[in-house]
Amino acid sequence: MGMTMTQKILAAHAGLDSVVPGQLIEANIDLALANDITGPVAIRELKKADMDKVFDRTKVALVMDHFAPNKDIKSAEQCKECRDFARKHDIVNFFDVGRMGVEHALLPEQGIVASGDVIIGADSHTCTYGALGAFSTGVGSTDCAAGIATGKAWFRVPSAIKFNLTGKLSPWVSGKDVILYIIGMIGVDGALYQSMEFQGEGIASLSMDDRFSIANMAIEAGAKNGIFPVDEKTIEYMKGRAQHEPVVFAADDDAEYERVIDIDLSTVSSTVAAPHLPENTKPVTEFADVKIDQAVIGSCTNGRIEDMRIAAEILKGRKVADGVRAIVMPATQEVELQCIREGLAEIFIEAGAIISTPTCGPCLGGHMGILAAGERAISTTNRNFVGRMGHVESEVYLSSPAVAAASAITGYITDPASL
Amino acid sequence: MGMTMTQKILAAHAGLDSVVPGQLIEANIDLALANDITGPVAIRELKKADMDKVFDRTKVALVMDHFAPNKDIKSAEQCKECRDFARKHDIVNFFDVGRMGVEHALLPEQGIVASGDVIIGADSHTCTYGALGAFSTGVGSTDCAAGIATGKAWFRVPSAIKFNLTGKLSPWVSGKDVILYIIGMIGVDGALYQSMEFQGEGIASLSMDDRFSIANMAIEAGAKNGIFPVDEKTIEYMKGRAQHEPVVFAADDDAEYERVIDIDLSTVSSTVAAPHLPENTKPVTEFADVKIDQAVIGSCTNGRIEDMRIAAEILKGRKVADGVRAIVMPATQEVELQCIREGLAEIFIEAGAIISTPTCGPCLGGHMGILAAGERAISTTNRNFVGRMGHVESEVYLSSPAVAAASAITGYITDPASL
Repeated sequence: MGMTMTQKILAAHAGLDSVVPGQLIEANIDLALANDITGPVAIRELKKADMDKVFDRTKVALVMDHFAPNKDIKSAEQCKECRDFARKHDIVNFFDVGRMGVEHALLPEQGIVASGDVIIGADSHTCTYGALGAFSTGVGSTDCAAGIATGKAWFRVPSAIKFNLTGKLSPWVSGKDVILYIIGMIGVDGALYQSMEFQGEGIASLSMDDRFSIANMAIEAGAKNGIFPVDEKTIEYMKGRAQHEPVVFAADDDAEYERVIDIDLSTVSSTVAAPHLPENTKPVTEFADVKIDQAVIGSCTNGRIEDMRIAAEILKGRKVADGVRAIVMPATQEVELQCIREGLAEIFIEAGAIISTPTCGPCLGGHMGILAAGERAISTTNRNFVGRMGHVESEVYLSSPAVAAASAITGYITDPASL
Repeated sequence: MGMTMTQKILAAHAGLDSVVPGQLIEANIDLALANDITGPVAIRELKKADMDKVFDRTKVALVMDHFAPNKDIKSAEQCKECRDFARKHDIVNFFDVGRMGVEHALLPEQGIVASGDVIIGADSHTCTYGALGAFSTGVGSTDCAAGIATGKAWFRVPSAIKFNLTGKLSPWVSGKDVILYIIGMIGVDGALYQSMEFQGEGIASLSMDDRFSIANMAIEAGAKNGIFPVDEKTIEYMKGRAQHEPVVFAADDDAEYERVIDIDLSTVSSTVAAPHLPENTKPVTEFADVKIDQAVIGSCTNGRIEDMRIAAEILKGRKVADGVRAIVMPATQEVELQCIREGLAEIFIEAGAIISTPTCGPCLGGHMGILAAGERAISTTNRNFVGRMGHVESEVYLSSPAVAAASAITGYITDPASL
């Protein structure tokens, strides 16, 4: 029986000729990732188990992104634990204030993850790197600790759903709309412990940043991972970045999929997920009477340069509506620098938005724009659960950067095509 | 008996021909200011007293700067109280995300305060506007509430110390060094409830940003206010900004001063205040073995465009030392925009610093760089009390932007002249 792309990567990393869905394997990992929330937990687990070591100082990444620059004493202490650990073990990929970035934007950008890798991260959106044709998935802090010390992790081999993409996206419609559309279709448990394998001729037209957004939210459909084939765009993206040689895997022609879902990209419209689940999606036009207090553009889902460019295109020469706080968060310092150089930063401030330091920020109710009771945000982040961005009586609507920017201008959830 | 500049402003606002030190007066105010910490307290006081009104919707300023964009639910609720109050009373000078700035940098910049004004603010550094030749002072939230509702405030007329400035500052030495030097000389209660009246031919060479830094920290010597004469630079600064006509007051020639202190600006060197009082000052060169974890450049004391320029001049082409977090905080969105346009923002990020949204941030342990136990910062802020920037076992050294930038480069407290 043929294998899916995910299965082939896992088999290779487990030293096996083949694997089948449901099989328990132990695989070598190419990277173990933790952040300023999960890192300290993993570090304490390592110390408890008398395993205060790293399997390879180049293959562990610690990224201070959730509450940095530190928002309070507790987060300061957590970052300090990570800093001390990174210094002790001479960890190469330790990212702190000055080399900041949201982990899932930073690692691909810095070439720390590449095609064919197996990556575990103590953060649910670790699945983002599937855009590069890597197997990457979120794990608990204890599993991450084991990975940090041993370079190995166990997996139950996932079965797969194939998403056969055809056609091209319409103007203003992006990868974020595609993944919201898919989650709306299959539900937040629609791909439970499965691989979402994206294939088809429609992929060629998707930018890398579109693919990162799509893979990023695979977890929001319950998937173990999301993964894209490696094509010219992938190779081009990794050129000059990859710190190790990428390896290209492709699904076997006779790979088995539990379902095949065909999606004509030209039929996807700008899509919004209403509170309090990412599956509560409808076309943006159906939310036109929803008034907002805050618009957030950024995060591991949508803080990359294309996201910034599309937001700037909409905000240019316009003004954020009275009473709306527009928070633009370039996902990394490199993206921020590019925003400054391309004139986007100026556009944001002139429009009456603010530019945050690179951070996960309000996405998870961390800092940089927490909502009060009764407040409502449109946000390019990935989760709109109850209380996710602040008070339990606040609301988050999920959208693309184009929709969030357009909504910032009008004060209501707005189709960018209507501006 | 002649009056000091402060006394003349107070007399005019009290409708009196003259006042004497110690006299209790009621004066008309030109502005009542509150922020996102003190505003909600004042608003609640007003409601309790059944005085939910503002005396003049153009003469009340509410500035969301301490914890905005909101760092947690509590700060979100506080900002919402201010927003609701501002909307209800149609307050013109309500500043929120998108029009952000640290209050004491924002109000002069936006021309909301001008020479000859009487300004009360529920924030201790309200004394900053003395740089414009205004009488401004910090009050409690209850007094501020009364001012918001009635347009009046009571004062005990202060006596004064005259600081006779001569000479010119040396390269790399700034207004911040002057005020640290003075506080080191007279102590944190050296001007208790007095006016610090700056005079002398040395003033002409001080930039407005130097003067703002000096007036800003008058409170750190215990002063009621600090005040500068109005000269060509003041007039030039206010041109095109002032939202109301400035009025120029000057001290009488026969004004009485409790002390006269002569300061030759050319003898002031780069000065640092060691923990845990602003009076613990020594020349920067005496701290050369003090290792730092963080450098903060910004705040109501030193977040203006000249502060940014001098920091950029030092950071340009250099790299922040390993293990040091350098946090640059332009004090307002206008300063930030100027940093972007002048190429300073690029320099900061290329050097490995981060650019914060305009906020008081870590100065008062708010957010954006809180210290863990055992950590040490050099900071251009105004207070280094125990636990001011985070954990009670952390330390803050106060300095100019030049010293903070130079220290960020070397990782030790550094004289910029030595780089």
